[in-house]
Formats: sequence, structure tokens, C-alpha cells
Amino acid sequence: MKTVYSEDHRLHAARMELIEGTLKPAVEKPERAEIVLARIRETGLGPVEPPREFGTEPLGRVHDARYLAFLERAWEMWTASGRDYEALPLVWAIRGLRAVEPEAIDGKLSYFSMDAGTPITAGTWAAARASANVALTATAMVRDGARAAFGLCRPPGHHAAADYYGGYCFLNNAAIAAQWLRDQGAARVSVLDVDYHHGNGTQAIFYERADVQFVSLHGDPRTEYPFFLGYADETGAGAGEGYTINYPMPFGTTYDVWGAALDDACGKVAGYAPDAVVVSLGVDTFERDPISHFKLTTPDFLQIGRRIARLGRPTVFLMEGGYAVEEIGINTVNVLTGFEEEA
Amino acid sequence: MKTVYSEDHRLHAARMELIEGTLKPAVEKPERAEIVLARIRETGLGPVEPPREFGTEPLGRVHDARYLAFLERAWEMWTASGRDYEALPLVWAIRGLRAVEPEAIDGKLSYFSMDAGTPITAGTWAAARASANVALTATAMVRDGARAAFGLCRPPGHHAAADYYGGYCFLNNAAIAAQWLRDQGAARVSVLDVDYHHGNGTQAIFYERADVQFVSLHGDPRTEYPFFLGYADETGAGAGEGYTINYPMPFGTTYDVWGAALDDACGKVAGYAPDAVVVSLGVDTFERDPISHFKLTTPDFLQIGRRIARLGRPTVFLMEGGYAVEEIGINTVNVLTGFEEEA
Ligand SMILES: [Zn+2]
Ligand SMILES: [Zn+2]
Repeated sequence: MKTVYSEDHRLHAARMELIEGTLKPAVEKPERAEIVLARIRETGLGPVEPPREFGTEPLGRVHDARYLAFLERAWEMWTASGRDYEALPLVWAIRGLRAVEPEAIDGKLSYFSMDAGTPITAGTWAAARASANVALTATAMVRDGARAAFGLCRPPGHHAAADYYGGYCFLNNAAIAAQWLRDQGAARVSVLDVDYHHGNGTQAIFYERADVQFVSLHGDPRTEYPFFLGYADETGAGAGEGYTINYPMPFGTTYDVWGAALDDACGKVAGYAPDAVVVSLGVDTFERDPISHFKLTTPDFLQIGRRIARLGRPTVFLMEGGYAVEEIGINTVNVLTGFEEEA
Repeated sequence: MKTVYSEDHRLHAARMELIEGTLKPAVEKPERAEIVLARIRETGLGPVEPPREFGTEPLGRVHDARYLAFLERAWEMWTASGRDYEALPLVWAIRGLRAVEPEAIDGKLSYFSMDAGTPITAGTWAAARASANVALTATAMVRDGARAAFGLCRPPGHHAAADYYGGYCFLNNAAIAAQWLRDQGAARVSVLDVDYHHGNGTQAIFYERADVQFVSLHGDPRTEYPFFLGYADETGAGAGEGYTINYPMPFGTTYDVWGAALDDACGKVAGYAPDAVVVSLGVDTFERDPISHFKLTTPDFLQIGRRIARLGRPTVFLMEGGYAVEEIGINTVNVLTGFEEEA
């Protein structure tokens, strides 16, 4: 399987993050991608290729134009207002407050975000653009006939919605890939999200559509970020009714339960008969992940790849979360290796 | 004029605050109230009395029961989950996300808050309760015939809505006072909010009601916190149509413009003919306030008090913001002294 990788992810390197009420050294850091890349080379998974430039048009198919304009200019506006450190929002337009885009950059950061834990730095826009190009280049390989491809995206994407960022995500790589496949002629695309966290952004983008199915396994939002989406009763709306399927699971979930949910999820994907599957591949389900609470083991990740392969569909894997830096390489590549063994 | 003061405000003393994207030493600190108290004693404004205990019933007239239960238990739940530092929320249910109360304390903090800059500490609930009692005790003095009284509230209240905290505010003292006056037989009450920031919580609480008028002078939300409320086109809804009046003003506003707005605002209050006026008294309009951008001078605050006195109404002053610690005493007491000179 080919991997697509760009060094430009390094342009986004936040120093600190607000985690559980305190500023800590960022866990979403460049080493994550570099360790996965090293493991790919070490195991000989396949060639590593650079991304092609797809321009902003595929981004605009998923994200609002005002949001993209904001992301492009955010750092410039932030520093122009006299700050030289990472930009964070402060206040959010929850119930009873008005969702209007303010003029000041502090207000725009707040308007276009969902959380306080996702810093914008000098290189964030360039890195997010490169990450989307990585996703699209891998997706094009599958469109062109590859059985599978891996986009080693960083920053990740699945928490970003049409017009807000959060959860370390700015551009929703999986949604951009799925939409691009549709625009290239695919009739139906499934997004299978196996990251520990609910892919709220992806769900929101496709919630009222029948042409992209969204299936997610994740920590129960009653007790886990992002708290406000990912409940089992969210099944889509309008034309999209029935095309969103959520499997929230409690803290401490092990592979016997998680794997059964994956099996059920794959049944839903098979029933949908998509032309292609986009996998939001987070490995923060790992038992020693520092910010998560599932108990998957390193061998379990081989099983994940095998099960997805048995769908028999053209498959794009896109990197999402995973923060146990030492093991992120082994666990990620185990999914891809398991897939190749079974495909 | 009598002042009501409780030392219990010291129980809420946050160490750090998230301000403009970085953790800084808290500006909303106990010294604020102590400097105002010292100035009151120095100038001989009048007696300083402790608050009476009003119980939780007056709080429940303004705030949701679930919100009060959360505030009471938040620190206990936070520490029970293994953290010993100040509690901060992380993610908010903005557009497209579901406003559901999660089970985990991290989720509850997020659900019941509007910003990332308002830490909850071990003593926050006790201090907020004392602050509301300070407000109610001063309000009772006015109900009992005093021309005016000053509640030296801390923490402040005007950003807190029926079911969320933010902007250093937990219980909305001004709203609790206005509602209590109504429940004690006042037909109409005006809340005049002269704090630099928009009193979004007070506005939201009374937005659809005709029995409490809300009039606010503040930094334009297009460029200033709280960004998502306080625009001039917000005039009330339903039965409350016309009873909310906002005067947003730009950075750099001086007293010639601000005072003219106050004069207009007082005309609206006079036209409403309230039985009493509750003044949300913030002095962060001061030219050297560290987090604000108006240009009022120390003598201007005498003028504010004089103008409010000319309304000729029973008046409760309740402390809100003001962060230039050295001058907060002089500026606050200047308002009260100006009032007494003219009353
Ligand atoms: Zn994740
Ligand atoms: Zn203020």
C-alpha cells in the first residue's frame, strides 16, 4: 500500500494545549506523524510519495468560504493585533447567544471554533492545506484503481465541521476526500471513523445527505469529548435519515466489545454498498493512549485492518488521532498490514 | 449610603485566567473588593454592614435548578475525578452541536459555561452565594425605604445567564436583585448596566419580559467580549419587545460620547418609570483598565453618579467589573459620592 506524506505538517507545532483545565505541552505534535512514517519505512509497507496540489476548490466543497478565508488570515490578524504567541479563542455562542461573526480576531477565533484546546500558529494554515492535499492524493490513488492507500494526514480532520475548528482539526480531510470521490463520480461513499473520539465534524457535514454514509465507533459523549455529538440516537436527518450510525462505548472498552461493534458497523457499510470507503484512522483507542480511555492492544489493530479489508471495497485510510507517541507507529501500521494480509 | 460587604468573596480566588490566548495571573481577584472597601472607609461614605442569608429561593427565581445544583457540586465532582487545580471547561455546544448535559464533570463544566476564562475553585460556590446575599441585603435596604444602597458584590454577576456562567460571573446578582424586588411588590424594575462589557446574562434572563427593563452601555460586541450579544438591534422579544436597550460604543470612547449615551439611557429609564433601579456598576470603563478600551477618567465617575441620582428613583448599586486595581476604589466610590451629592 502506498503512503502519502508531506513534511509540511511540521509547520503546525503548538507549544501548549489547554487539556483538562490546565496548559500542558501539546500532545498533538509533529513526532506523531514522524513515528508513523518511520514504522512504515521499517516494515516496508510500500512506497511513500509526496502529495499533489489540489488547490482550494475541493476544500470549498465541504467548508464554508468565510471559514476558509478566516483560517487563511487568522494568524496574520492575530499577530497584527499585537500577540506573538499561539492564538486561542475565549468565548462561544452557546444557547441564547447570537451566532454572528465579529470583526475583531478574538471574536472570529471564538466564532469559528468549538473548543479552547486547538491553538492556531504561524504555520497552521499551510500545514492544514498540506494535510488535505495528502488526503486527496491518497484518495486519487484509490480512484485510479488502487485497492487502498494511506494518507498520513496531520493535523487531523474529523472534529472540523463546515465552519468551525476544534479537537486539533482545521480542515476535515475525510469529508473532503469523501466529497471529492462523489464529485469524481462515485455514487456512494462510506466514512468509517474508528478514532477514539466521535467525528462530530464529519457527521455534521453529511448529516442530511444519503450519498455519504457516516459510521463511527467512539467513547460515549456522555463522559467523553466532544460531549455534544455522537449519541446513538443521532441517525441522520431529512434525506440523510438512517445514513449516520453511532456506536458510543464506555470507558475501559476492550476489543471483544469494540471488535463486535466494528463487525456490526462493517455490516452497515456492506449493506450500503459504497463505491469506496474512507477510514478515519485514529489509534487513540490504544490502552496506553494518554488522553483516551479504551483498552485496545497492539495486536487488536491488526484485526481492525483485516475486518475492514473483508468489506472488499476500495479503501482510503486517513490518519486522525493517536497520542501514545511511542506506539502510534506500530498500531497504525498494524491496521494497514492487517488490511493488506486480508485484501 | 450604606455598603453591604462580606469577606467570603475571598473564598473565590483564582490563580490563573485564560486571557487573550494565554494563562495569566487572574485580574478578577480579591484585592478588587478590598480596595473598594478601603476607599469607602477612607471617604466615610457610610456604614458597612454584613449580608443577611436569603437562602437559595431567590436564586432559583432567576437560575435553573440544574445549573444551581451543578455550581454547588462542581468542585467536589472535579476533585473526585482526580484534579486538584482550578476547573476549566474545554468545548462548547455551538451551532450544529447538541445542548445536552453530559454526565462527566468535564462535560458539565462545558455545558454550563460560555467561556474558557472563568475558573471554578474550592470556594467559588460559597463566594457566589455570599455575593448574591450581599446584593439581596442591599436591595432589601432600598425596599425598606433607603434612597440607595451599595452591594459590594464579588464575584460579579452580569455575564451569568439562567443556566451558564462566564466572564468571572456565576450568579447574576443584578438579575436576582431585580427579580426579588418584583417578588416583593415592585411593578417595574430597571437594570442599568454601566460596566464596560455587555451584561449578556441579565439581558438573556429578562429578554422576553416587560416587567424588568434592561439598559446597557458597553464596548461594541463586534470588537469586544462577549462578542455574541449586546448589538443595538437587540431590543427584546415577545412581551419584552422594546424593554432591552443597548448602547454599544467603539474602542477609545471618552466621556463626551459615553455620557451622552448615559443621558439617553437615563431618559429611557425615566420613561419606563420603574419603582427601583438596579445599577450594574462596573468601572472597567476607566482609561487605564488593563482589559478594557474606553477612556473614562476618575472625575467622570462622579458625573455618572450624579446623572443616575437625577432619575430620582430608589437605587441599588451592585459591583460588577473594574480591574485597574489601584483606581477601582476611587472610581467606584466616585459614582456613589456623585449620587449622594445630587440625590
Ligand atoms: Zn481522537
Ligand atoms: Zn466588565
